[in-house]
Amino acid sequence: MTIAESPIRGSLDLPGQSADAATTIDVPPGLKGVIVSETGVGDVRGEEGFYHYRQYSAIDLAEQRPLEDVWRLMIDGALPSSATQRQDFIAEVGRLRSIPLPIVDVLPAIAAASEPLEGLRSALSLAAAHRMLRPTIDIAPARRRADALFLCAVTPTLLCALHRLRRGMTPVEPRDDLCYAANYLWMLHGTEPPAAHADAVEQYLISTIDHGFNASTFTARVVASTGADLGACVVAAIGALSGPLHGGAPSRALALLDEVRTPDRLDAVVRPMIERGDKIMGFGHPVYKTDDPRSVMLKGVARRLAGNDTASGRFVAFAEATEHRVLQLLDEMKPGRRLHTNVEFYAGVVMELAGIPREMFTPTFASSRVIGWCANILEQAADNKIIRPSARYVGLQPPVPVPQFADRH
Amino acid sequence: MTIAESPIRGSLDLPGQSADAATTIDVPPGLKGVIVSETGVGDVRGEEGFYHYRQYSAIDLAEQRPLEDVWRLMIDGALPSSATQRQDFIAEVGRLRSIPLPIVDVLPAIAAASEPLEGLRSALSLAAAHRMLRPTIDIAPARRRADALFLCAVTPTLLCALHRLRRGMTPVEPRDDLCYAANYLWMLHGTEPPAAHADAVEQYLISTIDHGFNASTFTARVVASTGADLGACVVAAIGALSGPLHGGAPSRALALLDEVRTPDRLDAVVRPMIERGDKIMGFGHPVYKTDDPRSVMLKGVARRLAGNDTASGRFVAFAEATEHRVLQLLDEMKPGRRLHTNVEFYAGVVMELAGIPREMFTPTFASSRVIGWCANILEQAADNKIIRPSARYVGLQPPVPVPQFADRH
Repeated sequence: MTIAESPIRGSLDLPGQSADAATTIDVPPGLKGVIVSETGVGDVRGEEGFYHYRQYSAIDLAEQRPLEDVWRLMIDGALPSSATQRQDFIAEVGRLRSIPLPIVDVLPAIAAASEPLEGLRSALSLAAAHRMLRPTIDIAPARRRADALFLCAVTPTLLCALHRLRRGMTPVEPRDDLCYAANYLWMLHGTEPPAAHADAVEQYLISTIDHGFNASTFTARVVASTGADLGACVVAAIGALSGPLHGGAPSRALALLDEVRTPDRLDAVVRPMIERGDKIMGFGHPVYKTDDPRSVMLKGVARRLAGNDTASGRFVAFAEATEHRVLQLLDEMKPGRRLHTNVEFYAGVVMELAGIPREMFTPTFASSRVIGWCANILEQAADNKIIRPSARYVGLQPPVPVPQFADRH
Repeated sequence: MTIAESPIRGSLDLPGQSADAATTIDVPPGLKGVIVSETGVGDVRGEEGFYHYRQYSAIDLAEQRPLEDVWRLMIDGALPSSATQRQDFIAEVGRLRSIPLPIVDVLPAIAAASEPLEGLRSALSLAAAHRMLRPTIDIAPARRRADALFLCAVTPTLLCALHRLRRGMTPVEPRDDLCYAANYLWMLHGTEPPAAHADAVEQYLISTIDHGFNASTFTARVVASTGADLGACVVAAIGALSGPLHGGAPSRALALLDEVRTPDRLDAVVRPMIERGDKIMGFGHPVYKTDDPRSVMLKGVARRLAGNDTASGRFVAFAEATEHRVLQLLDEMKPGRRLHTNVEFYAGVVMELAGIPREMFTPTFASSRVIGWCANILEQAADNKIIRPSARYVGLQPPVPVPQFADRH
C-alpha cells in the first residue's frame, strides 16, 4: 500500500518537497490511540470493562477452560473441540517443557547474576539459539508455530529453575502428569500443590495471557516486523515487561497492605499518600475507566481460595476493606478521576494465598503473557510490514563544521 | 499532555463514546512517516542524501574524528573540545572494555549454541544483570550514562570473544593502548592490524552509529519507555537488528560479487535477477532517494584501502564495475524507481579488504550501532512517556459463548 492509498487522516504536505518525503503525521505522545495494526488476537474495551481473546470473553475462558485450551486458541486460532484435540495439544506442549541440557549447565551462572525475570531474558535467548530458531521470514508457518510452542512451554520451567537456584535449591523437573498450573507450583516448590491453589493460579494465568497492544506486546511486534526469529521477539518483550511502568509489580499492592497492617490504620496511611500525589499501587488503569474485569474475577478467586481457613479469610477480608476504603478516599480526594481497582491488587492477594513468593509475582505474569506475545508475533509474521516510524529533529541545525583542535588521533 | 492538548491531526470522534475512548488515529502501515518523537540525536534527509549526528554531518565526523569523540558526542551531547577531554573519555571507556569474570566462564557455552549476534544478545543480557543495571526510571542520569558506556564498551569485546570461541580459538584480551578500531581488529585476530585497516574500519563504524528511527532504534526506545534498564533496551534492539529486513547483511552484497565472478558475466547474472523481481543486495534504500552518503564515503575508503596492492585494487575495480552496471540495468529495467547503491555494498567491500570475516559483518555493524541505541535510550529516559499504541480488532465479534464439551479438566 502506498502512502496515497493508505487511510491517512491528517497528512501534511510541505511545499517544495516530494510527497513521499513530506508526508509526515503528528500523533499524540506515546502513540496513544494510534492504530498501528489490525489484529484478530483480541481486544480491550476500556469503557465496558471487557476484554477478549479472539471471539471469547477472556474471563469466561479463565472460568471455564484449562490453560492449554486457551493457549491453543491463541496460537492455532481455535479452542479444542474434543477431548482428543485437547489431549493432543497437552501432550505436544508437555514434551516441550524440559530445559535443553546445555542450558541446564549454564543456569546456575545466570541465576547467580540475575533476578528471575532478567535471568529468563538471558536463558530464553540462549535456549532459542540452542534450538536454532530461524528468522520468521525464512521459515514456514508450521515451523514458526513449533518455535512459539517451545518458547511458551519452556518459560515456566526456566523461571522456576532460576528461582530455586537463586535460593540455593535444586531445580525440580517438570511433570507431564500435572496440569499447567499444578506443574508450575510443583516446579516452584517441589511439592504437589493443593488443587485449590492450582485452580486459582490457572485462572490468574489465563486472565493475563493477552491485553491489547501494551508496550511489551508492541515491542514483540516491532521486532517481529524485521523478520527476526521468535526468540529475539520474546526476549525483547521480556525486557519491556521488566520496565516498572509496564510489568508493574503485583507485590507492590501487597506492600500497601503490609504498610496499612490493620483496617483502623487505613485513613492514616492512605490519606497522606493521596495528598502527596503518590500513585496508590493496585488502583487506576490507563485503559479501564470502570472495574478491571480481571480484578473482579480475581476477587472471587481469592474468596474461594480462602474458603474456610480463618487466617486466609481474614487476609481477604482485610484486602477487601482496604480496596473499599481506598476507592472511597480516591473518589473523595480525586473526584472525576474514575480510578478503579486494577489487576495488580487481587493478583497479589491470590498469588500470596497460593504460596507464590513475592519475587516471582511478575515472572509468573510473564510465564503466561509469553503466549499472548507469541500469538501476536505469529500474526505479525503472517502479514508483515516492517515497523519503522519517523521522528522530528529538534536539535541544533546541521551541518555545523566539525571543530578541529588536533590531528585525528 | 492530554489528548485535547496534543497535536493530533485527524482525530475521529465516534458518537456515543467518550472522547478518550473514541479518539483513534489511522496511520500508514509500518508507521511510515508517523512522527513518534522529537529527537536531538540526529536525522536522515533522504532526498538530500544527508544524515547527521546532532549538529554535525555524520560523514564529516567519520572523516575527521576518532570514534571515541563521536561516541562522546552521542552520549554526552558534545565533542571533546580539548585533547585532555578526549583522553579522559578514551580512558574512561577503555576501562570498561573487559568482560566481567562470571560472564567469561559462560561464554564458551553461549558461543557453542549461538551465532555471534545471537550470542551477544544472551551475553549482554547476562552482563547487564551481573552489573546490576537498574531500571532507568529509578536511577539518576549519571548512573544511566555509566550503564550506557559499559554496554557500548563491552559489546565489541563480547562479539570478538564469541567469534573466536565459536571457531575454536582463545579470546584475546582488549588492549588499552590501541584505538577503538585497532583494538577491535586486535581482539578479532590476535595480531595488530595495519593502520590502514584500523582507519578504514573506524570510518565505517562511525558512519553506522545512528541512522534515524529504524526498527532497532525504535525498539530500544519502546522498551526504554517502560522504564526498563539499559540492558533490556539494548538486548531488545539486538533482536530487531537480527531481523533480515533490518540489519541486513553486508555479506549478501559480497555474495553478489561472488556470483558474478568476472565483469563480463555481469549482464548474464544480474539481468535475470532483475527480471525475476529479485532484490539486488546492496541497492535501494527506504529513505534515500539519491546516493546513500555512507556508500559514497565507503567507496573512497575502499579505494584508499586498496592503495597500491594489485589484488585489492582489482577487487575494488570489479566492485565499482559491478555497481556501475547494476545501476545502469536497474535504471533501464526499473525506470523511475530511483534505486541507488546503499551502505551494504561498499561496507562489505571495506570489511572484506580489512580482513573481517563475513559472519562478523553484521555483528561489526552492531558493535557501533549500540552507541546510537544508547543515545536514543538516554534521550527517551530523560523525557519519557510510555509508548503504548492501539490496534483495530478485526476478528469474529465477541462475546461468543465458550463451547462446553466436557468438564474443565
